[in-house]
Amino acid sequence: MERSGGQATINDVARLAGVSKKTVSRVINRSALLGEETRRRVEQVIAELGYVPNPQARALALRRNFLIALVHDNPNAQTVMNVQQGLLEGVAGSEFELVVRPVRRGSPTMLDDLRAFIERQRPFGVLLMPPVGDLPPVVDLCRALGCRHVRMSAVAGDPASTVASNDREAVRHAVSYLVEQGHRRIGHVAGPDGFLSAAERRAGFEEAVAAAELALPRSWIAQGSYTFESGQEAGERLLDLSPRPTAIFCANDEMAAGLVHAARARGLDVPRDLSVIGFDDTPIAAHLWPPLTTVRWPSISMARTAALKLIGGEQEVEEPSRFLSTLIRRASVAPPPAD
Amino acid sequence: MERSGGQATINDVARLAGVSKKTVSRVINRSALLGEETRRRVEQVIAELGYVPNPQARALALRRNFLIALVHDNPNAQTVMNVQQGLLEGVAGSEFELVVRPVRRGSPTMLDDLRAFIERQRPFGVLLMPPVGDLPPVVDLCRALGCRHVRMSAVAGDPASTVASNDREAVRHAVSYLVEQGHRRIGHVAGPDGFLSAAERRAGFEEAVAAAELALPRSWIAQGSYTFESGQEAGERLLDLSPRPTAIFCANDEMAAGLVHAARARGLDVPRDLSVIGFDDTPIAAHLWPPLTTVRWPSISMARTAALKLIGGEQEVEEPSRFLSTLIRRASVAPPPAD
Repeated sequence: MERSGGQATINDVARLAGVSKKTVSRVINRSALLGEETRRRVEQVIAELGYVPNPQARALALRRNFLIALVHDNPNAQTVMNVQQGLLEGVAGSEFELVVRPVRRGSPTMLDDLRAFIERQRPFGVLLMPPVGDLPPVVDLCRALGCRHVRMSAVAGDPASTVASNDREAVRHAVSYLVEQGHRRIGHVAGPDGFLSAAERRAGFEEAVAAAELALPRSWIAQGSYTFESGQEAGERLLDLSPRPTAIFCANDEMAAGLVHAARARGLDVPRDLSVIGFDDTPIAAHLWPPLTTVRWPSISMARTAALKLIGGEQEVEEPSRFLSTLIRRASVAPPPAD
Repeated sequence: MERSGGQATINDVARLAGVSKKTVSRVINRSALLGEETRRRVEQVIAELGYVPNPQARALALRRNFLIALVHDNPNAQTVMNVQQGLLEGVAGSEFELVVRPVRRGSPTMLDDLRAFIERQRPFGVLLMPPVGDLPPVVDLCRALGCRHVRMSAVAGDPASTVASNDREAVRHAVSYLVEQGHRRIGHVAGPDGFLSAAERRAGFEEAVAAAELALPRSWIAQGSYTFESGQEAGERLLDLSPRPTAIFCANDEMAAGLVHAARARGLDVPRDLSVIGFDDTPIAAHLWPPLTTVRWPSISMARTAALKLIGGEQEVEEPSRFLSTLIRRASVAPPPAD
């Protein structure tokens, strides 16, 4: 067998199999894009040479690392964990590893930090979690650096680089459910500026309220930052109103948990005195008392699909055009109290 | 300037500065171990050559990657996120990145999976979260592969490879607080087999109960698996007892949250009818209603210190010999109800 001396390299495999290094890489990563014959030929050469893939050497040869990076600035630990779980499911059985790279959206050095990270580590691809992926300069940077990227988004986009959910429609449905229960004074704890998800969820809320021809004073919408504490503060503002809303839709579960806290602290019972709906269906939703009615955001399957898009090269990943969020009815919604 | 042609490499820098590649690496990673003169000489050569560190090339040269891996099989997402946060704080400002590598403790292929991961990626070091780090074969494997590792543990060990907390003592203190409040029937929801933390917390509980000369029927200890659902089930068993415990110490917050759920579901008020103490002080503790009295496990600072040990080479990391867990008094403990 022809050998370059010492351990066999990906170059040896490619040369002997008569294919490109990229094709060898695809075989190792079990890409579905390959013809069966090519796969068999490359696998045979790998076996004959006793080639053991060395990710560092291959990274040098291919100018890429076998790392998928999760880039995020998300305040919700449970959401981040769900996305990690989905990504790990997506790369399971491959030789890709997950790198976690938090960034600070508000920092003046965020783009430089991200550029330094990509240039140094040369990740094979990056997943941009909201709100980082909602920032056009971040996407432009990835493009300029030739870094493969997929955004998770509340709005549809280029299918090659987007996995999208239907937040607006799902919220419309959730708020209509409150209307069906008889609520006429419905408030909203909105998410922070800069999150497309926050804007979409608020738009869905306003559309449902308008469709039911309900009043919506400005004071019935309080803005939070997707954290428990901000939900608590928003709750204090909304529950001070007179008359106060009989139902409140919160743009995520953490804020809903904070709102329930604020309600209990002033002796209100959920759902007897106040109905609450959240968004995400992170574990806290089921663990609250009463268990929280919420909209399940399919973050795990979105992240799994994103991982497959990132590592799959040009191969088609089977996926819905939108990932559908669905209403999970638990125990935090009831008809409004008699006035 | 002597150059090997093309881009300068770490070899060029080492040769011209008259130091080892490892020393160059230390300069790049801002190790505190270096003399000021060496650092200045290496930095000057780096500047003269216009050397840009290439992690893949350096990984090949040093046979190591600039990756710190978090190896875990922990059922609690919030605990894992805290540990990730601490590790990220520890590597902030260096060129190290965090790789997340879950394993399955019960799987017959766990050791092989871990070996394959370490051999393929050659991480610079690994943090072994409980309970993975409690398994001697895992530690033996890291040693055999020459892979730098640090364990987080509830029991002191070799300081070079252990960051340890004082769980037993902290739990003794927490349970004594229940005794001071007047409780005489104190139950325990224990953690799963194979977790040293679970064994230590249970030992602390039993020591405090023995010191107060209280009865401890076997039925007052229910075993869970550190998950919310297992806490709920354990709660159902303990709250069925007659007489039932007036206070219950749970080996983590998730199980305490499940126990509170089970109590509420049968109309019991916490803390009027039942006092509850958890362990960890993950966010769920403060977010529960009533806010949970718990023992704060310093997971973030333990993980930060572990990261510094992993990337710091032989340099001394300033740290306490044990990380102290402390009782956080919130609103889930009160004197027992009158019989």
